[in-house]
Parts: sequence; C-alpha cells; structure tokens
Amino acid sequence: MSEISRMVEKAKTASAAMALLPTSVKNRALKAMADGLDRGGKDILAANGRDLAAARAKGIAGALLDRLMLNEKRIGEMPRGLREVARLPDPVGQVISRRTRPNGLRILKVRVPIGVIAIVYEARPNVTADCAGLCIKSGNSVILRGGSEAIHSNRAIFRRIEAAGRKAGLAEGALQLVWDTDRRSVDELLGTPGGVDLVIPRGGEGLIRQVVAKAKVPVIKQYKGICHTYVDASADLKKAEEICFNAKVQRPGVCNAMETLLVHRAAAPKFLPAMARRYAQAGVRLRGDAPTRRILRGMPVQPATERDWATEYLDLILSVKVVGSVGEAMEHIRRWGSSHSDAIVTRSKPNAARFLKGVDSACVYVNASTRFTDGGQFGLGAEIGVSTDKLHARGPMGLEELTTYKYEVTGTGQVRR
Amino acid sequence: MSEISRMVEKAKTASAAMALLPTSVKNRALKAMADGLDRGGKDILAANGRDLAAARAKGIAGALLDRLMLNEKRIGEMPRGLREVARLPDPVGQVISRRTRPNGLRILKVRVPIGVIAIVYEARPNVTADCAGLCIKSGNSVILRGGSEAIHSNRAIFRRIEAAGRKAGLAEGALQLVWDTDRRSVDELLGTPGGVDLVIPRGGEGLIRQVVAKAKVPVIKQYKGICHTYVDASADLKKAEEICFNAKVQRPGVCNAMETLLVHRAAAPKFLPAMARRYAQAGVRLRGDAPTRRILRGMPVQPATERDWATEYLDLILSVKVVGSVGEAMEHIRRWGSSHSDAIVTRSKPNAARFLKGVDSACVYVNASTRFTDGGQFGLGAEIGVSTDKLHARGPMGLEELTTYKYEVTGTGQVRR
Repeated sequence: MSEISRMVEKAKTASAAMALLPTSVKNRALKAMADGLDRGGKDILAANGRDLAAARAKGIAGALLDRLMLNEKRIGEMPRGLREVARLPDPVGQVISRRTRPNGLRILKVRVPIGVIAIVYEARPNVTADCAGLCIKSGNSVILRGGSEAIHSNRAIFRRIEAAGRKAGLAEGALQLVWDTDRRSVDELLGTPGGVDLVIPRGGEGLIRQVVAKAKVPVIKQYKGICHTYVDASADLKKAEEICFNAKVQRPGVCNAMETLLVHRAAAPKFLPAMARRYAQAGVRLRGDAPTRRILRGMPVQPATERDWATEYLDLILSVKVVGSVGEAMEHIRRWGSSHSDAIVTRSKPNAARFLKGVDSACVYVNASTRFTDGGQFGLGAEIGVSTDKLHARGPMGLEELTTYKYEVTGTGQVRR
Repeated sequence: MSEISRMVEKAKTASAAMALLPTSVKNRALKAMADGLDRGGKDILAANGRDLAAARAKGIAGALLDRLMLNEKRIGEMPRGLREVARLPDPVGQVISRRTRPNGLRILKVRVPIGVIAIVYEARPNVTADCAGLCIKSGNSVILRGGSEAIHSNRAIFRRIEAAGRKAGLAEGALQLVWDTDRRSVDELLGTPGGVDLVIPRGGEGLIRQVVAKAKVPVIKQYKGICHTYVDASADLKKAEEICFNAKVQRPGVCNAMETLLVHRAAAPKFLPAMARRYAQAGVRLRGDAPTRRILRGMPVQPATERDWATEYLDLILSVKVVGSVGEAMEHIRRWGSSHSDAIVTRSKPNAARFLKGVDSACVYVNASTRFTDGGQFGLGAEIGVSTDKLHARGPMGLEELTTYKYEVTGTGQVRR
C-alpha cells in the first residue's frame, strides 16, 4: 500500500468520527489550532525563510515571491481566520427540508460532511491553515498537498495546527499534509477512483487544468474570472463610473476584478472620455474596439483583438467594447465570459431583469461592483474558493458548500405496497 | 465540425431560451408531447417490433428482452408520466435564500437550469420520453443517446415528442436524439470538456462504468444498490419480518431492494427461523455466515463468502449475517455497502439515532423498508434516477436536482472598500 493510499484510508476512518464530532469540540480544536500558530510564529517565519531563499536562488521574484512570503502580519491572519471560523454556525446536522408522507414516513433531508477533501494548492502557505479550518468545521477530513516552493512553510504551519487540533479532540488522520513533494503523490491522490470524495485545487489556471486533466475523483474549481461590466444606455453615469473604477482598480489581481467593459453606444460618447481619464490617473491601460478608439481619439488606446475578449489580465489592463443593446452585451458575455461575475449598470428595470435572468454566470449584478463576489462579502463568513462549475457549488463556497446531505427516514414499520 | 459538436452547440443555444421559458409554455409542450405519443402508439409499436425481432435474432431473451418490449400499457405510461410532470411545480426561479447585506446589497440565490444534459441509456425505450419530460420541465436542453438495441423504438418515440414539443413552443435543439448508433458518438459526447454540462447514465453497472471511465464532463450516477437491513436486539420482530420481507421480495430486481440482512445475535435465534420459512415460501434462497447456518440448520442455506457481501443480486437471493452489536452492523455496512439505502429495525432510540447519524448512505431508514428510496415515494413527484454520488445530488433525483443556482445581486451603486 502506498503512502497516499494509507493517508486516504486514515482520512476515511477519521471522517466517520469527524461527522459525529460535536460543534463544541470542533470549535475548541479550531481555537487550539489558532493558539498553536500564535506560539509557533518564530518557527514558521524561519521555515518560510528557507522557502524564500530557495525561491530566490531559483530566480523567482515579484508577485510569485510575494505570494510565498510570510511576515508577522500575514502569520497573524491565520489564527484570526481560524477563530472566525470557530464562531460561524456549524452546517452539519442542519435540516434542509422535512416532510411527512401520507403513509406516516418522516423524511428529513439533513446536511452532512462530504467525507475526505483534498486541497491541492501552490505558493500561498496560508492556504494550509485556512482550508484546514474550513474543512474541519464542516466535519470533513482534509488532505493538504501544497506546492514544493512552500513546503517548509507548509510543514511548519501544519505541525502546529495538527498537534494542537489532535490534542483538542480531532480524530487522528482528520488533518494530514502530504509530506513529500513528489509529483506522483498528486497523481495518485487525483487518480484513484473511490479515493478522496472531493478535490479542490487552489492556484493559477495552469495548476487547475493539470488537476482536472488527471482527476478521476470529483473536482470543484474555478478556471478564471473574465468579469464584465455593461453600462446601459439608461445608466446613472456617475454610479457607472464609481462601479467601473472599483471593479477594475480596487484589486486588479483577483478573479472578481473586471476585465472587459461593455458600453452602450448611446452612453459611450459621454461616459468613456471621463472614465478613461480616471483610469489613466490610476495607471489603467485600455484596449478598445474601433468605436471606443474613435471616441477616445487622442488617448493611448491599443486596438482590442478577439484575444483580449478571452484574456484574464489580472492586471491594470482593461478591454473596452461599444455595443448596440443589452442583448448584444449579453451575447458578448455568453461568448467570451467565464460564468463568474458580470454586472449591468442601468436605470431600466426591464433591462436589469433581462440581464439578471439571461446571463448564465455564478453571480450577476445590477448596479454594483463585481468585486463583491466573495464569501465574506456575501455573508457566508469565510470561503474556501469561488466555483465556476455548475454542479454542487457555484460562486463563493463557504462551509455549507463543503457539505452534502442524506435522507433520514423514520417509520413505524412501513412497507411498500 | 462533427455531428455531435453541432448537436451540443444547438443544445447550448436552445438552453438560453429554455432557461427563460415560462412555466405555462413548458407545461403546454409536455402535454402536447403526451398527445403526440397518444396519437403515435401504432407507429411506436411497429418500430418496437423491429427492435424485438432484431434482438431475438441475436438470441436476446428473458429480462433483457422484457426491458426492451413495449405494449399498449407501457406506451400508455409515457404520456401519463409527461402529464404528471406538467402538473409538478416548476423549480426554475425558486428563491433558495435571500439576504440583504449591511451595505444594502440584496443577494438572491435563485434556482436555474443546469444547461445541457445528456442521458446515455440502454434498453428501456420509455427513458426517451421520461427523461425528456423531466429535463424540459426543469428548463434544460437534453441530448438523448439510447442503445442500439432500442434504436427504432427510441426514434419513433422521439419523432412524436420532438415535433409536438417544438410546435408547442420549445426552442429548436432543446430536445435531440443521437440518431446513429455509432459508439464514437458516445465517446465524443462524454469526452469533450466544456461540452454538455452533465451526463446521467441510465442502465446496468457495466454501462455506468464505461461512461465514468470516458467522461471528461460531470456525471451523476448510481453504480449499484447493496442495501442492508439490520434487525437490532430490541426490534419488534413482527415489524422486522414485514420490513425484511418487503425489502427483499416486493421487487427484487431494483436497486433499493435488500441484498444483505444483518441480525443481532440476541434476536437471531427467534427471528431467523420464522423469517427463513417465510422467505422459503416466496422462493428466496439464503446464503448465511456460520452462526446463521447453525440457527437455520436443516434448512437449505449456502455458506456466504466475502463475495456475497459485495454482490448486488437483483434477484431472490439474500445473504444473512449475525452480528454482535449495532456498531458491528454499521461497520459491515461501511465496508461492504454502496451508500445507497440501509435500514435499522429497532425499538431503541439511541441505537436508531446512532444508525441514522453514523451510516453514510444517501437514505438511512429506521423501522421502514429500503424499497421507499424513490422519487415518487419521497414526494418528489418523479425521478430521473437515484444518485450514489455525494456531490450535487444524493439519493432520489427529481426536478430540483436537475437545477443549479445563481446569485442575483442588486445594488444602488455599491463598490467594495
């Protein structure tokens, strides 16, 4: 039996106990894990130093190095997150629906943990603590498999939370880290039907495509966020400007930032010049279709190609297109979007309704920034990720989305006629 | 572009229209489809005759031939089913939850269709009408791919329902049948990531394993039903007898029939002889572990092997095991069960609660027959199948389980700080 099969078996055995663990014990474990991290800050920083040195030696710099880096502030966020999760309501045991049948059978649809969840992630070592906390609160066993670039940090974080969690009552095997950094471990984790119940990959599109290609077990994922904002003919242009500025500029490197701005041709001549000036001040570079460039002549707007409509810049770059109707905007989103988050800015109720119903994305907005697609902002308390899949979980995934359900049926001797 | 890609493209285009179709139009279409079948009975019988002749020529007989066979009664059930589905509530547009955030954002979680659903099935031609009805009522486009053995029947049924449905307002492409019987069509349907949104295979374990092995798109499935009934020490033995008889005998060839009987050793000496006599009268053959055979000595009980614990007989055969505790029964179910439907018969509330919470199956019963695992019996109105998966849908799948959700977020200009 390989190391991975042994881990999965242990996690399965633990998950039976985890499913029955009282909320109080799970919360106590989460707080103990937080305390463990508080005490282990120095060790974790030292381990992270080793990962950073190795990364620098490999020539890694910039955003990638930043994602890998821990400091006291970032380390402090991990225990704070765990304590927040401890305060959230426990989804396990919630009754989703109840019905009594004419023959007297009582049927309860009850939330239960999924079982064994594997998290395959890269770079950010904080995922180790964040995902462990969410999986445990939702009664699941979790197998963590971080990238080799963060292995020392991940191990140091894991050591602290695992020991503290187990002491506080978690089943052995409920929280495991794949210790080695051999690629074959991932392949085995993903490629064993009947193994883990769910894999959630966390990282760039490359990692996610690799996971999906290899997975013989269920995966919930987010490929990318090509989010649109459509400024309708009837839009309040002041609001449109605030929304479009926020959606692009407030944090451009994340999945719910806007990548393409669609503007109705009746609004474009007035809206685009003011908006473009504001973007220019914030360092946003524009790529426009021909009508956009005509309206913005004299400003540095590169021509947009089809490739731009399909690109998640994750940067201060924005593609802009002028459209003739809400229908044309919706058609563009259908063709080029990623079913993540898309917004309309309008004062027309029929257009708002048409957009809400007709755009097939996880989150559809009227008169608000796409940046709100987030478990915290939605009031879910915390999130393990955003799903662009349609099955099981869509959009921000919180604790509820880490559960499934079972039917508990109670009778008094009923048989089927 | 291949024929299958063209079909998927058409289905996608249609699904945008289907998602917005008013309930009244969908219901009118379902009734028109039912009328079409009523008028087409003779054609369908003739087409079925061709399938039956071809099957007989191949030497097919018995249960397989029976599954393929239509008669007036069976043909009459299809339009009745469609009219029933027309009467069920429309899940599309239902608000699952609503919340208003402190910043005034209104967030609605709304049920929407999944999109394009492919049904891959074998034998029973009635699946053509039944699945079409459920997919359409839930606002999805559907691509049907039946087995070659039923192709003439499937085409005849499809012709009637497709023409009638389209005339009554369904989008073109919302309802499609893969016309040829080339295996490569199935491979392409299953193997195109980003193609259909969901595949539901309907048929034997062999078909389902084939589909899963090839699928690069989401699948919801039921491998098999190895259902257990555990008769506890404290069981009302009269009730236990009725439940165990019903679970095995009422319809042995289906997934929710009992395959293994577990009996507490305190109940076994009194319960098993009476039960075995009753089973013998109904033609049930028993396979027992050593204690069972000791208690039933003099009766024809074959020795049960590990293989029996893992077998879905779908027949009048039952494996029997004596256990020492509810915990041992649960452990047996964990090891050998299929997470489908399992029951305890007991008068002990703690044991009932322990079993309900601890057995990780889609449907867990106290004092009732596992035969109730069924969309109709659960009050879902109709079912497209039973899922032994844990993600998205578990247990009987009705109209709701053919939907996903989206978040509709309405603001007044909110931006993220």
